[in-house]
Amino acid sequence: MKVYLDNGATTMTDPQVSDTMAKYFTEVYGNASSLHSFGKSAKEALDISRRIIADSFNADSREIIFTSGGTESDNLAIKGVARALKDKGNHIITSKIEHPAVLNSCKSLEKEGFRITYLDVDENAFIDLNQLKESITAETILVTLMHANNEVGTIQPIRRIGQICKDNNIIFHTDAVQSYTKVDIDTKKIPVDLISISSHKIHGPKGVGALYIKKGTPLTKLSDGGSHEFDVRAGTENISGIVGFAKSVDLSTPEHIKLQNRLKDQLIDGIQRSIPDTVLNGPRDNRLCSNINISFRYIEGESLLMHLDMKEIAVSTGSACSSKKLEPSHVLLAMGIRPEHAHGSIRFTISRFTTKEEIDYTIDTLKPIVEKLRAISPLK
Amino acid sequence: MKVYLDNGATTMTDPQVSDTMAKYFTEVYGNASSLHSFGKSAKEALDISRRIIADSFNADSREIIFTSGGTESDNLAIKGVARALKDKGNHIITSKIEHPAVLNSCKSLEKEGFRITYLDVDENAFIDLNQLKESITAETILVTLMHANNEVGTIQPIRRIGQICKDNNIIFHTDAVQSYTKVDIDTKKIPVDLISISSHKIHGPKGVGALYIKKGTPLTKLSDGGSHEFDVRAGTENISGIVGFAKSVDLSTPEHIKLQNRLKDQLIDGIQRSIPDTVLNGPRDNRLCSNINISFRYIEGESLLMHLDMKEIAVSTGSACSSKKLEPSHVLLAMGIRPEHAHGSIRFTISRFTTKEEIDYTIDTLKPIVEKLRAISPLK
Repeated sequence: MKVYLDNGATTMTDPQVSDTMAKYFTEVYGNASSLHSFGKSAKEALDISRRIIADSFNADSREIIFTSGGTESDNLAIKGVARALKDKGNHIITSKIEHPAVLNSCKSLEKEGFRITYLDVDENAFIDLNQLKESITAETILVTLMHANNEVGTIQPIRRIGQICKDNNIIFHTDAVQSYTKVDIDTKKIPVDLISISSHKIHGPKGVGALYIKKGTPLTKLSDGGSHEFDVRAGTENISGIVGFAKSVDLSTPEHIKLQNRLKDQLIDGIQRSIPDTVLNGPRDNRLCSNINISFRYIEGESLLMHLDMKEIAVSTGSACSSKKLEPSHVLLAMGIRPEHAHGSIRFTISRFTTKEEIDYTIDTLKPIVEKLRAISPLK
Repeated sequence: MKVYLDNGATTMTDPQVSDTMAKYFTEVYGNASSLHSFGKSAKEALDISRRIIADSFNADSREIIFTSGGTESDNLAIKGVARALKDKGNHIITSKIEHPAVLNSCKSLEKEGFRITYLDVDENAFIDLNQLKESITAETILVTLMHANNEVGTIQPIRRIGQICKDNNIIFHTDAVQSYTKVDIDTKKIPVDLISISSHKIHGPKGVGALYIKKGTPLTKLSDGGSHEFDVRAGTENISGIVGFAKSVDLSTPEHIKLQNRLKDQLIDGIQRSIPDTVLNGPRDNRLCSNINISFRYIEGESLLMHLDMKEIAVSTGSACSSKKLEPSHVLLAMGIRPEHAHGSIRFTISRFTTKEEIDYTIDTLKPIVEKLRAISPLK
């Protein structure tokens, strides 16, 4: 049995998605910006896909821009708003637990003269709404806070965050790459100006993402060229990828979330019952259905990952984007978790293809490995 | 018979390419940045693909960065070098016939304080090497000139351009999106620092491109996030797309170029023999095997396109990226072609799937349509 519980688990393209894409490689391959009827079929596919994403946010089609992924969406939203509003103010608020695409975009803007406030989080990775309010100044032009955290699954109260921003006339961007299709965002009810999403986190193809941009939001584009995507993002449209992304949205159902939550509980309870000295990082409630993060005291996460790999179980340590750095996770450190405990943390991702049998196998496999590693651990 | 001779003709993904990609959607879908063995298979595919692209330039693997397409590659090269060298100088040289991704990146840099020289071209769209030399100042940090033009197929003398840049210690970027796999660039022989290429121009998937960056070239990255692609371009790697791109390079052979050149000559000669008052725009020699651009006097290109469309023949007018604007082509105008003749121009693209029968059918179909349109033309 091969068990994918790493953060790449969601990146298996659903076979129904790749089947849908096939036609757009070899049959409907016109240039969606062309005038003739062959190009128009591609244009229709693009329009329908845009409509599907827009509907998922209760938004207008013209508010959806396709990108090459979550990282580009985050860069476009944050740098785009900052540069468009630089004459209005130079202050941006984010948090210490954002994805590197957000944190490093902010760091890059610091070099351009922007001032960034990095909000703290509590032991469960929730931001403090009072600290947010107190951080706002007359210079604040943008708040960028993620919807759900990629490492510990914490779902932030974005409705209340959005309301604070709206009350202060500040643009609000949220990176919803992790939560998309798992936690609804109705843009008619939640005051949010920009939302980043990614296809490969919901079993769509890699290399595709989107950015919701509320009508009227000031934005300087990052990529110059043709006038594709309402003149916000240049480059020939990746039709097959976009069609696949939309299909993966269509295939997402509330039943998947229920199933994932059940398997999440099974794995957390199973580990905590059978293995002592384990701690769930992040909240038990208001947590993504797909995320589990557990610290196994006295052992290194990397060793555990390697031993599980030998048993055909894939897991992640910390965040995958920095997993080769072997630095303690910035998210766990911001939550006040000690570096030695952060190092022993493992992230399990539950996808909609995960089965009860895989969870049983994982719990059974973990116990002897953890015991063996602890027996030789110099940390104990 | 459906005949694709528009600029989307090359965007049909070769069935061998999409077959190769299939496995990377549903089988090898790990995160290439992950530590465990599942991620490593994706990493291997990424490494092999990078090697294939590098070999095509006689370059090192570490000199190839994957992007979302030609537009991103152009933006990264031009803005990346300009911003990295802004303390050294503020002058950039390009030409009037570049792709919008280059021209608009330059225009965007003008707003940041850079000064741009737009070189003229002659009646066949060749730049003047003396004008290039005379335009260089102590402030010049970058020359960006395309290898082959997308509208009229003119192949610039990049070896001599590169030598002029090298002699003056100036970075040279070339947009080789149109010429890639059709005209060789050996980076050990041609002095070039950056080369933009795109997958969907050679029957690979859309949404993938690459940038060759000679070792040691100063470059500020555009996209912040994880440390993917040697820390030059953040974002989870689009493995299936990258594998497809590499496969499309593997499938390109010198025989295709010979075939395309033969069909190109057949179409040019056939049109000029059977339809009077037609002019080939661009050179007959030093022209891409895939490009034909012909002005049909006294008629509008859009009308001709629509009539050919009804006969199931897809062609382009001007450049597709601005084809909905109905403005005369900036390339044809720079070549000194009068606006009314530019408006009557049609661009035919010969792909490696084009057949002799399709060319015969196109010539036979064109003649009566042109005669009919001319009979009702107010221009004649």
